[in-house]
Amino acid sequence: MTGGVERPPPRVTVVEVGPRDGLQNEPGRVPTAAKVSFVEALAGAGLRVVEATSFVSPKAVPQLADADEVMRSLRRRPDVRYPVLVPNERGLERALAAGADAVALFTAATEAFAEANVRASIAETFERFRPVAMRARTDGLWLRGYVSVAFDCPYSGRVAPESARDVALRLFDLGCDEVSLADTIGTATPGDVARLLDVALRDLPGNRLALHFHDTGGRALDNVAIGLDHGIAIYDSAAGGLGGCPFAPGAPGNLATETLLACLAGRGIETGVDRLAVEHAVAGLRDAIASAA
Amino acid sequence: MTGGVERPPPRVTVVEVGPRDGLQNEPGRVPTAAKVSFVEALAGAGLRVVEATSFVSPKAVPQLADADEVMRSLRRRPDVRYPVLVPNERGLERALAAGADAVALFTAATEAFAEANVRASIAETFERFRPVAMRARTDGLWLRGYVSVAFDCPYSGRVAPESARDVALRLFDLGCDEVSLADTIGTATPGDVARLLDVALRDLPGNRLALHFHDTGGRALDNVAIGLDHGIAIYDSAAGGLGGCPFAPGAPGNLATETLLACLAGRGIETGVDRLAVEHAVAGLRDAIASAA
Repeated sequence: MTGGVERPPPRVTVVEVGPRDGLQNEPGRVPTAAKVSFVEALAGAGLRVVEATSFVSPKAVPQLADADEVMRSLRRRPDVRYPVLVPNERGLERALAAGADAVALFTAATEAFAEANVRASIAETFERFRPVAMRARTDGLWLRGYVSVAFDCPYSGRVAPESARDVALRLFDLGCDEVSLADTIGTATPGDVARLLDVALRDLPGNRLALHFHDTGGRALDNVAIGLDHGIAIYDSAAGGLGGCPFAPGAPGNLATETLLACLAGRGIETGVDRLAVEHAVAGLRDAIASAA
Repeated sequence: MTGGVERPPPRVTVVEVGPRDGLQNEPGRVPTAAKVSFVEALAGAGLRVVEATSFVSPKAVPQLADADEVMRSLRRRPDVRYPVLVPNERGLERALAAGADAVALFTAATEAFAEANVRASIAETFERFRPVAMRARTDGLWLRGYVSVAFDCPYSGRVAPESARDVALRLFDLGCDEVSLADTIGTATPGDVARLLDVALRDLPGNRLALHFHDTGGRALDNVAIGLDHGIAIYDSAAGGLGGCPFAPGAPGNLATETLLACLAGRGIETGVDRLAVEHAVAGLRDAIASAA
């Protein structure tokens, strides 16, 4: 089932996760209208996948409690996908009611992280996913899966490549169109990335694998380079490097979209994204946050 | 006199101009101590040339009126060069009194810009430079020259490559160790850069030529790519993209150092600079500005 991959890929898809993975970790209150404008500006910049919000419990992530309104207000482009995070069937119901047609599921490569993050074993997360995946199939929803802490876990240390690969495999088996391997705490090294990809690409479709790096350790771009060398053509990033790192206050979290775009531009790899327009989207969001404060 | 250049260069020198070209255009007041910390943090990030301030008239650039104090307070690293802008002999006297040992002169490729910017003809700017250059020679100062509007001028339009080349040549003749060709308004296209470099490299030492791009039009990285293809190994940039564009309010000015570093990292070109440390330097400066406001 290994997907054919070109090394390095001539074209890369940048999956914008700022409105979700970024804003869920921003301390200040962000007005709903500013979130909507932000998502629209990012789509306008040429990003073809913009993760718009999350339908996890508002108690768990109060920053995104307005997910329903964000999705309903959004003027969508026909050529852009707007996935939303859903933790379970209840989240899916809310997402569908708000008009979502692409959803993302998240589990982890380690039991300790799954337990800490969603209070469930890995197996239990898959039990929660089953009805979501079934509905996704019948309704023709696009489905993304996340493997958190695919390289390193704040609770149980280095992760065996086989563990991350197995969880990714189960997500593909569940029917995920795409699976993202996430360096949730930003400590992965290029060696870690090469080791996981060497193992993963034997069993997983490389053309449907995404990499999700945080820049906490400053190695995100080195890790992207390893991914490109392995033919991976889908990378997650957050405009403005929004969000910080919940495990290291003050440190950078998500790789900034502008940084990723500059790196890819340097290599002559096409993305179809206007870097300056992304910077304008971030400036607009910051202005809106400052005005609301 | 053409210097041997490798295409693309395996290693690039990033000349950090944020504390000067960036801060001179920032609207808010920046405390002197924050400027000093900023320069020190940038040098700590591995930048080997940090343009620290400007000794132009405080009336012309009130933002940098504390140039003397900045230079006196700076804890300098022996392996870092801290050039300062000087417009004429009086500026040089102030700079030397404050302990500067590297200075930068600036003129323009067009008469209209020279007139508007420093109220002098190009020939008159060179008359002002003569005593500075003489002193630089006798005192062993390092000397940089800037050619503003080397590609495009807000007053007289596109600049003939020969005009920019001639001004650069005069700066080298004056004894400049390095000359920077500046796209002051950020409108240069890759074609413009190729045309100027094709002309310039016939007569100028390529290994002592720098390129200074503004990102106003979003093409700074494309222009860097052309420079690299021509073997140019010295690029100016400003941490945080500080400064904006005085000719287009709200638009980006200087190419951000982080963006340049990401682009160079993407190409596997060494700089010796820690991108994350540059981001921390910018965050520190922004915090200091916010606290002072």
